[in-house]
Amino acid sequence: MTAYQLLLSIDKTAKQPAYLQLANQLMNLIREGKLRAGQKLVGSRQLAILLTIHRKTVVQAYDELLAQGWLESKTGSGTYVVENLPEVHPQRLTESAGFDPNPLKTAGFSFSEAPHLRRDILQSVTSLHLDDGFPDPRLAPLHELTRAYRSNLLLGNPYVKLGYSDTKGSAWLRQELSVYLNETRGLKISSENILITRGTVMGLYLVSTGLLQNGDNIVVGEMSWGSAGMNFVQAGTNLLKIAVDEHGLVVDELEQLCQKQPIRLVYITSHHHYPTTVALRADRRIKLLQLAEEYGFIIFEDDYDYDFHYLSKPLLPLASADRTGMVLYCGSFTKTISPAFRVGYLVAPENVIRHLAQLRRIVDRQGDLILENAIAELLQNGVIQRQLRKSLREYRERRDVFCDLLKTQLGNYVDFQIPDGGMAVWAQFDKGIDLEVLAQKAIKKDLFFSNGKHHLPLTNVTRLGFASSTVGELEQCVAVLKSSFK
Amino acid sequence: MTAYQLLLSIDKTAKQPAYLQLANQLMNLIREGKLRAGQKLVGSRQLAILLTIHRKTVVQAYDELLAQGWLESKTGSGTYVVENLPEVHPQRLTESAGFDPNPLKTAGFSFSEAPHLRRDILQSVTSLHLDDGFPDPRLAPLHELTRAYRSNLLLGNPYVKLGYSDTKGSAWLRQELSVYLNETRGLKISSENILITRGTVMGLYLVSTGLLQNGDNIVVGEMSWGSAGMNFVQAGTNLLKIAVDEHGLVVDELEQLCQKQPIRLVYITSHHHYPTTVALRADRRIKLLQLAEEYGFIIFEDDYDYDFHYLSKPLLPLASADRTGMVLYCGSFTKTISPAFRVGYLVAPENVIRHLAQLRRIVDRQGDLILENAIAELLQNGVIQRQLRKSLREYRERRDVFCDLLKTQLGNYVDFQIPDGGMAVWAQFDKGIDLEVLAQKAIKKDLFFSNGKHHLPLTNVTRLGFASSTVGELEQCVAVLKSSFK
Repeated sequence: MTAYQLLLSIDKTAKQPAYLQLANQLMNLIREGKLRAGQKLVGSRQLAILLTIHRKTVVQAYDELLAQGWLESKTGSGTYVVENLPEVHPQRLTESAGFDPNPLKTAGFSFSEAPHLRRDILQSVTSLHLDDGFPDPRLAPLHELTRAYRSNLLLGNPYVKLGYSDTKGSAWLRQELSVYLNETRGLKISSENILITRGTVMGLYLVSTGLLQNGDNIVVGEMSWGSAGMNFVQAGTNLLKIAVDEHGLVVDELEQLCQKQPIRLVYITSHHHYPTTVALRADRRIKLLQLAEEYGFIIFEDDYDYDFHYLSKPLLPLASADRTGMVLYCGSFTKTISPAFRVGYLVAPENVIRHLAQLRRIVDRQGDLILENAIAELLQNGVIQRQLRKSLREYRERRDVFCDLLKTQLGNYVDFQIPDGGMAVWAQFDKGIDLEVLAQKAIKKDLFFSNGKHHLPLTNVTRLGFASSTVGELEQCVAVLKSSFK
Repeated sequence: MTAYQLLLSIDKTAKQPAYLQLANQLMNLIREGKLRAGQKLVGSRQLAILLTIHRKTVVQAYDELLAQGWLESKTGSGTYVVENLPEVHPQRLTESAGFDPNPLKTAGFSFSEAPHLRRDILQSVTSLHLDDGFPDPRLAPLHELTRAYRSNLLLGNPYVKLGYSDTKGSAWLRQELSVYLNETRGLKISSENILITRGTVMGLYLVSTGLLQNGDNIVVGEMSWGSAGMNFVQAGTNLLKIAVDEHGLVVDELEQLCQKQPIRLVYITSHHHYPTTVALRADRRIKLLQLAEEYGFIIFEDDYDYDFHYLSKPLLPLASADRTGMVLYCGSFTKTISPAFRVGYLVAPENVIRHLAQLRRIVDRQGDLILENAIAELLQNGVIQRQLRKSLREYRERRDVFCDLLKTQLGNYVDFQIPDGGMAVWAQFDKGIDLEVLAQKAIKKDLFFSNGKHHLPLTNVTRLGFASSTVGELEQCVAVLKSSFK
């Protein structure tokens, strides 16, 4: 048996290709000095025979090591271990004697924590969940998306496609989106009115950082999306709150505020108020636009859940009726595909888009061009649109089943309105129930739902998301809830 | 000929699958009222015969329209157009008469532009380029990456994998990175010391926004990376500049500054000073660490180009010798894979990572979990490491060829040092040459390079990136340059 046979062995059943196994083993022999610098290697034909593998495998392994710089080939003479190995030998700055080997827990400098950014992380590790209103990724067009991702990654000029690109986002996606939003939202925009963001939260962040100043007055509903409020506080602004009733924000209260002080921005989730799920009534929308023009405030319209309306006659967003450039309109594919794909859009007058793109350039330079192009392809081919119609139908059925179960099984404990849109029910639990205890009981039975504590000062109220569970799963969820009341 | 034959036609050579063509045509007939609500459709077998297509194609088309809600099937009776069509009829808020149909160019509210964020966009649309020092994406492991992306997208629990996830980044990638950085950079960290960012620029942004305050004093080299300076100015800090010589930052100047005023942070590109390509000498590194401990300032160490050193004995970064938690260490895969994949890392004491993750949560919520997991897989399998060894070898050859060409062909016009690392040559052109005119001439000959105007007050100096061009392309580049001098 030769030394090669003793030192090298190929496992033909392993997942790693044979040539890589061989290359790695040879590399280790070089590193360990068993193959010396300058030593001539046995020919590929001979090594193949010794190891009973294809000669092609040996040639591939040698090529790999030539490319990595471990071997060199001399014409007509064979393959040699190089004299100067490609090993990196970094130089230490100081002796490490007495060096604490533990990772650092605390910085050597001080800094102020940001109490307004602290929050409990709610994470479901259960099989069943009635979440905050998330989509069901099992319905997402994942195969189409991964195919489009692959082809956009591998085709075209790599220097252009894989280099730095426009901070405003993929030109293709901006074009497709302008057509799509004009058709479905009644907007009148070109791609120059669009900045592709990483979800609605980034639109909020850029607007807060780029358009708001310390001390500005911002108006939100008395209940609204926590991340929006955090963004406004982070920008150093004052948060003013107005009432929300069964028709959305009480716009008359806003008018009174405007008469007393300058207002810079009003944040709305017009289609589907978060968290209460109600839509802003048409007359209030018109009044809101009139007030914006009169008092000069910005309307940040968060297009939350617009695509999911079960009555087939949603009101168009305020942005569709904005004649004077007061509305910034923001949406995302979070609910259409899934939260993991961080692609959204901010729609605004061109000068705002240019200004915020400059800011975004120092935040993360640009979005994911490959993913953005893949989504553009899915929009152009109508895949997203078909997907939306299918999910809408599925989610409507889930809503109907879930609301029916809530009513028939838990009607004595829970009060709610059937939502016209969105992915969650705003559920008021009976005063006699401790929602925190109920949520803890449910977790033990493998069901997650939020105890609603972050909706304070409201108590015993929470969102129960139905869209991410099948009808069968919803039945299990309600059974667990019911059994936990006892 | 039946109405179906008149109204429907399938193009078997088209790219769109036959069933989708059929489904879309049927949908349009329903929309146009040619198929009426409640109307019974012809059976799938019969329609297949009429259109001379497979029956399976018709069944697939009907299924698609059932899922989208255009058709309903009644057991034992057949397939019908639904009574309530799934068409969305949004309601306009106002009459659009007199509405300006043009996209809005200017906002109705005023805002301050940010002059410190304005910059010229340099974009190469030429075949040849001597860029700022970008990698060659033709060498990137794109097939491995797209395979890993696909498998990470499609396998596992979709609710967990495609839902919201940890703002600090993929647990898998943080684990692999901690091992990799400990091995290659001499760090002593756990995954709790890592925040996955979208490139180095996001690390800079989070640190500037989360750790710096209005009026803080920040020290940078008199020449340094523009995006770093923009971030510090955006945070409202004062930029103080110290000299850079052939051994990097002149640390003695820093000591003098520290004696005069409190310094909050010093920004360094220790391995490879941007733009001049020199490495910070060991004694200066040690002095810098001592000063940080003595005066309490943060060192932001931008690990620019660390992986690309051609002498095989780079100095380990300052972070490897930081005993007291003064160094924030930042790097990315921009140069290893390509700029389009926005994945980088910030290494810091645990309390800093937690603080900055809270801030990042309101910026863009989280990174791209699928892509991060794909890169973790490539690190775990050694693909990235192999890739690095191969590119290093290739880039060294390109550097040697390019420097040789510069010397022999353009030696009379250009002065430079052969860089020990990185992807660009810092080239000082002869005083008699107008670099702006030269760059314009070159563009006309299909070669892009920067005229270096953003390196003011230095003149006639620019970076010529060699790594993204093959040896043959580099020869063409130098030939174009040479012919442009005349």
